[in-house]
Amino acid sequence: METKAAVAFEAGKPLSIETVSLDGPSAGECLVEIKATGICHTDEFTLSGADPEGLFPAILGHEGAGIVREVGPGVTSLKPGDHVIPLYTPECRQCEYCLSGKTNLCQAIRETQGQGLMPDGTSRFSLNGEKIFHYMGTSTFANFTVVPEIALAKIRQDAPFDKVCYIGCGVTTGIGAVINTAKVQPGDNVIVFGLGGIGLNVIQGARMVGANMIVGVDTNPDKKVMAEKFGMTHFVNPKEVEGDLVPYLVDLTKGGADHSFECIGNVDVMRDALECCHKGWGESTIIGVAGAGQEIKTRPFQLVTGRVWRGSAFGGAKGRTDVPKIVDWYMQGKINIDDLITHTMPLEEINTAFDLMHAGKSIRSVVLYD
Amino acid sequence: METKAAVAFEAGKPLSIETVSLDGPSAGECLVEIKATGICHTDEFTLSGADPEGLFPAILGHEGAGIVREVGPGVTSLKPGDHVIPLYTPECRQCEYCLSGKTNLCQAIRETQGQGLMPDGTSRFSLNGEKIFHYMGTSTFANFTVVPEIALAKIRQDAPFDKVCYIGCGVTTGIGAVINTAKVQPGDNVIVFGLGGIGLNVIQGARMVGANMIVGVDTNPDKKVMAEKFGMTHFVNPKEVEGDLVPYLVDLTKGGADHSFECIGNVDVMRDALECCHKGWGESTIIGVAGAGQEIKTRPFQLVTGRVWRGSAFGGAKGRTDVPKIVDWYMQGKINIDDLITHTMPLEEINTAFDLMHAGKSIRSVVLYD
Repeated sequence: METKAAVAFEAGKPLSIETVSLDGPSAGECLVEIKATGICHTDEFTLSGADPEGLFPAILGHEGAGIVREVGPGVTSLKPGDHVIPLYTPECRQCEYCLSGKTNLCQAIRETQGQGLMPDGTSRFSLNGEKIFHYMGTSTFANFTVVPEIALAKIRQDAPFDKVCYIGCGVTTGIGAVINTAKVQPGDNVIVFGLGGIGLNVIQGARMVGANMIVGVDTNPDKKVMAEKFGMTHFVNPKEVEGDLVPYLVDLTKGGADHSFECIGNVDVMRDALECCHKGWGESTIIGVAGAGQEIKTRPFQLVTGRVWRGSAFGGAKGRTDVPKIVDWYMQGKINIDDLITHTMPLEEINTAFDLMHAGKSIRSVVLYD
Repeated sequence: METKAAVAFEAGKPLSIETVSLDGPSAGECLVEIKATGICHTDEFTLSGADPEGLFPAILGHEGAGIVREVGPGVTSLKPGDHVIPLYTPECRQCEYCLSGKTNLCQAIRETQGQGLMPDGTSRFSLNGEKIFHYMGTSTFANFTVVPEIALAKIRQDAPFDKVCYIGCGVTTGIGAVINTAKVQPGDNVIVFGLGGIGLNVIQGARMVGANMIVGVDTNPDKKVMAEKFGMTHFVNPKEVEGDLVPYLVDLTKGGADHSFECIGNVDVMRDALECCHKGWGESTIIGVAGAGQEIKTRPFQLVTGRVWRGSAFGGAKGRTDVPKIVDWYMQGKINIDDLITHTMPLEEINTAFDLMHAGKSIRSVVLYD
């Protein structure tokens, strides 16, 4: 079949709207009609050329929602008509990682996914006979895409695609880091560095589980109003703090954060996030993605005196199990997604989404198909 | 009263055996007759002058065992004749830290202890009218010493002082890191960096809790025989590994360590210890004390893909609660201390213990009083 798609032909160039060829689903795969997709910083990272593992030409996009239209041989858990969110972190429920009970980093199809291919080592996309790579196993910047069954979370039918697509990455990454990775407890004091799309979801996750102080740290004071709407109780602008930021935050939280979260990708901020944690038990979770080759540093004394340094990918969520729950939380009004989606557009205007991101004018842009 | 003691008058100089004056216990304090004391690297660190917080003149020593001889006003949990191990990490059971349930780092007397003083801000030791500082709140290089009640673990009367003194630091630090901090589970694969006194105790802690592979890493092949006696299953000499050590260890453990422990104090080794952990869930615990100002480094990707970096002080043990249990384990034959104590000597020969340590000839030297 043919499908409309935004193709990344080259690093640093705008996406190009094309009609590409799409082969039907092979064994264990599903054809999904994408109804909406968010545009995330990770897409930007790859498109910019900064991602050392980026492949071109490719169809980017990893934050979508849609409807299963066809299933390949052997698919048992999904049928045409099911509403789904594609998962760039699959959940096979059979590999050592899935069975460990300790991580969400399913390794079942990691190798081919990293090569921009389906599990059988081939691509379903092509243009004029030339192969186009898949991206993160999802390629949601195509109206129709093929995704392995183990990388599709089945969600309720009444959830609006234009909102819950965001659960495919940003919402789950932020809320999941609080719930699954850090396991924030009621009454904990939390410090969140960076009040963008991930930071706001960390904040509402912390509010949902009953955190006490929820301190937001950002150099842009314009972020304050929205962050307060999501549950931030204290705003700190490092530019307005006299002296060092870390002791200021330790004082503010009467000893330091029980949990801190870095949602920027800046290795110096990652250090501050660790060191503002409470002696004896404070834990810092890195969510932001740092530039290639950059390193975090601290004195080991920070750890020996009880602080813990960890990281989170896709919010520690097992997608097929946890994503439908987060969709439920949205539908029940426990979390707010609507206010995070600041712009929508048709696929033809997808490059505008990158412009808005660069200009810092959007929290999240969402492409609506048809 | 007067007591015999080894006094550190100056950094870098041998200890001097003196008869010093000792004031009796004030409120909340106990007079303890020390029967045996180990000589630890931390004593050496301070005596060498490398410890930026070292104070002189002082009576060092923090790994002792003895008998309560007199109690000050208000002491309720101890009486003359009780056998005790002094605790450089006290357990007041009343401060925010003790009550948190998340840390052993009781802060009740931290400030004065760091100043080489009793909680009332004065010293009990003097020589010719000049104040001598306490050290780590214990000063076990004196035959008699005064220690706060909250810094004394009451132990069973049949435990031999010349062995269980080592539980005052090294044994608890190693075994406790496995049990309390890392919480190693049966079947876990463990990698231990540094097979000195701490590393051997980590190994026997791992064996006690049912670890699977217990890999010891040390550049000195002479450490192999003893480490195997304590439970090491695989020995790795980095000098004999072709190529990089980390991938070698990851291969050996079929994916990486569930838990690793750094027992040296080398920040480069700390990095290796983290990076040899299993993707998704491996946790590395820093026990060794690095030089002043040194920093640990890694790429944040190591944490985002599921590794956890933490540290341990005094094995995460709450001294009054946990030390008596470890004494029981020794008396029940669950752990081996006898083979770790390679040398004993009278106080008059204590400087020999430092010589043996420098020459790498001892695991632990113990001074026996009378």
